[in-house]
Amino acid sequence: MSATINTAWHLASRPAGPPTAANFEWRETTLPELADGQVRVRTIWLSIDPTNRIWMNDADSYLPKLELGEVMRGIGIGRIEESRDANLRVGDVVQGMLGWQQYCVSPARALSRLPPIPLPLSAHFGLLGHIGLTAYFGLTDVAQARAGETLVVSAAAGAVGSLAVQIGKNLGMRVVAIAGGAEKCRWLSQELGADAVIDYKAEDVASGLARACPEGIDVGFENVGGRTLDAVLGRIRLGARIALCGLISQYNTSEPEPGPANLPNLLMQRGRIQGFIVLDYLDRAQEAAEKLVAWHLAGHMHYRLDVSRGLQSAPAALNKLFAGTNTGKVLVQLGDEWMPGTAAAVSPDG
Amino acid sequence: MSATINTAWHLASRPAGPPTAANFEWRETTLPELADGQVRVRTIWLSIDPTNRIWMNDADSYLPKLELGEVMRGIGIGRIEESRDANLRVGDVVQGMLGWQQYCVSPARALSRLPPIPLPLSAHFGLLGHIGLTAYFGLTDVAQARAGETLVVSAAAGAVGSLAVQIGKNLGMRVVAIAGGAEKCRWLSQELGADAVIDYKAEDVASGLARACPEGIDVGFENVGGRTLDAVLGRIRLGARIALCGLISQYNTSEPEPGPANLPNLLMQRGRIQGFIVLDYLDRAQEAAEKLVAWHLAGHMHYRLDVSRGLQSAPAALNKLFAGTNTGKVLVQLGDEWMPGTAAAVSPDG
Repeated sequence: MSATINTAWHLASRPAGPPTAANFEWRETTLPELADGQVRVRTIWLSIDPTNRIWMNDADSYLPKLELGEVMRGIGIGRIEESRDANLRVGDVVQGMLGWQQYCVSPARALSRLPPIPLPLSAHFGLLGHIGLTAYFGLTDVAQARAGETLVVSAAAGAVGSLAVQIGKNLGMRVVAIAGGAEKCRWLSQELGADAVIDYKAEDVASGLARACPEGIDVGFENVGGRTLDAVLGRIRLGARIALCGLISQYNTSEPEPGPANLPNLLMQRGRIQGFIVLDYLDRAQEAAEKLVAWHLAGHMHYRLDVSRGLQSAPAALNKLFAGTNTGKVLVQLGDEWMPGTAAAVSPDG
Repeated sequence: MSATINTAWHLASRPAGPPTAANFEWRETTLPELADGQVRVRTIWLSIDPTNRIWMNDADSYLPKLELGEVMRGIGIGRIEESRDANLRVGDVVQGMLGWQQYCVSPARALSRLPPIPLPLSAHFGLLGHIGLTAYFGLTDVAQARAGETLVVSAAAGAVGSLAVQIGKNLGMRVVAIAGGAEKCRWLSQELGADAVIDYKAEDVASGLARACPEGIDVGFENVGGRTLDAVLGRIRLGARIALCGLISQYNTSEPEPGPANLPNLLMQRGRIQGFIVLDYLDRAQEAAEKLVAWHLAGHMHYRLDVSRGLQSAPAALNKLFAGTNTGKVLVQLGDEWMPGTAAAVSPDG
C-alpha cells in the first residue's frame, strides 16, 4: 500500500494582532496508517470563522489552546476515503475538526455523518451547521426573542449576523442591522429585509441607534463588543436581553480593550448579557436545520458564500474576516462538491 | 387647627462627584391641610442607600429623576399622625418614599402598612425591606444560586452585601467576601462566616480571587462594578451567573468609567450578567421576610446598623456610603422606635 502525502498549515507563531501568513507554516508529511477505529477523511470544505483566531492564542478558551507546530484547527467537511471503523464507510460525508489540511486521520467517533439536505454541501457551512445553530439558538433560546420586539444585530453582514437578521424577520421582529459600508448595508436592507441599517463607517453607531431605535432595544445579537456593545447598552429597554455571540473587536488585541461603560444601564433596565457557544446546542441541531431549510426553500432566508479555492488560500481567507472584506460566509474549497442523493439541489444566492 | 411646621432637605444642586452637604438646602415650610385620601406621616427612620445618589443625577433611572428644589427622595418608616383615608389610621406604621423630611403628606395608597415582626422597627431596613429582598432574590432568583457553588460578594460589608454573604452560607455555598479594611474583613470572616475574605485595600482583588477561588467562581453578587467586576469576570466558571445589584464605583463619575475588559470570558464560559432592581420583587416580599427572620432568630443571620441621629445628619450619613466609613446599614433616626405589638423584640447585633 503506497503512503499518502498530506499537506497542511501548521501554527508557526501566535499573532499579536490580526493573523498573517507568517503565523502559519506549510508542511508536507506522510500520513500514518490507520489504527482500529480511525478513518482517513479527504477535506472538501473548510469553514473559516472568527473563532479560528481565538484558537491561535496562548490561552485555553472554550477549547484547549493549540500548541505551536500543530496543524491549524478548523472545522471541515470531507469524504471518508479509508475506514477502520464499523460506523463510517468509504464515501460517507462527515463534518468535524478536520484541521487546515488535505487529509485528516481521525477517530471515527470524533466525526459526525452529515444528514442529506436538498442543498449543496456548502450549505452546511453557509446556512446550517455551527453558523445556523448560533444564529438560531442565540435568538430563540439565549435572547428569548419575541415577535414585535426590536432586534439589533452587529456585524450584520457577516455569516452569523446575516442569518440572525433574517431569523429575526422570520420571527416577526423589527430588525436593525449594523454593518460597515454602503454595499453591505444595501444588501441587508434590500435583500435581507432589515428594517433599518447603520453603516458604522459612515455614521456613529450610538447616533444611528438613536435614529433607528427611538423606542429602545429589546434584543441585541452581539458579534462585535467594544464601542458597538456599549452603544447598544446605552439604548436598551426594560428587560432587554443581549445574546453575546462574539466580540470580534477584541480578538486581535493582546491587551483586552475596556468593555462597555454603559453597564449601569443594564442595572437600571434589568437587562441581561448572556454569553453562549454553539457547542451547547449541538443536540438540538435538527430543530434549527429544519426551520432554516424551510425558510430558505420558501425564499425567506438567503445566504452568501465567499469561497477561496485551494488550501493555500486559508490564511488569506482568515484575514478577510478581520479586514471586513469578505462578502458572506468565508469558506475554503479543497475538493469538488458532492451532492447527497438528491437532484433537487438549490444554489445559494449571490 | 394650628399649622404644622415641616423641616426638610431639598435638592439644591446636582453633585459632580460624591454628594456633599452643599447639594442640599435645609428648609422650613408649613404643611398643607390634607386632601381626601391623604395622610400625614411623621418620619421615624430614614434609610440611606447608594441609590439616593442615583436619584440626584440629571437623568431618569428606574425612577424619574428628582427636580432641583424638590424634597430629597428617600425611603422611610413613619407613623400616621393624621388621616383622611379609610385604609390607614392614626398610629399605623407605614413604609414608603417619605423623603428627607420630618413629615410627609402623601396619598395613602403610596404607602404600605408594615406587618408586625418580632424585631425592632429598624429591622425593616437592616434585615428585611428593600435590603433583604435585594440580597435574597438577587441570589436565589437572579443568580439561581445553588448549594456547593462558590459565591463572590463585593462590597460585602455593606448592608446588602453582608446579608448576601450570610444568605449564601445559609444556602450551603462557599462564600468569598470582598471588603475594604481589616476590621470589616474580620467581621465577615469571624462573625458572618465567610469562607475567605479579600481586603481590597491590602491586596489586588484579582490576585485575591486567584487565591480564594482556585476552582473559579459560579456566582457573583456584584455591588461595585469597574475593576472589581472585571476581576470577577476573569475567574468565572462555565455557566456562571452574575447578579448585577449595584455599581457603586460608577455612581460618582460624571463620565461613565470603562466597564469590564474581561467580557470575552463571559462568552467563553457562557456566563450571564443580569441586572435587577428590588422593585420587581415587591410582590414576593413575604417569602424573603419569613426566611430572613427565621435565619436571624436561629442565630444564622446578623445585621449591623450605623445610626445617625436627627434629620440634620442625613447628608453626612449619605456620604459615609461613598467614603466606605459606615459599619452596617446606614440609617437616620428622627423619632423614637415603636415596637409593634410584641414583647419578644430582639436587638440587632453589634
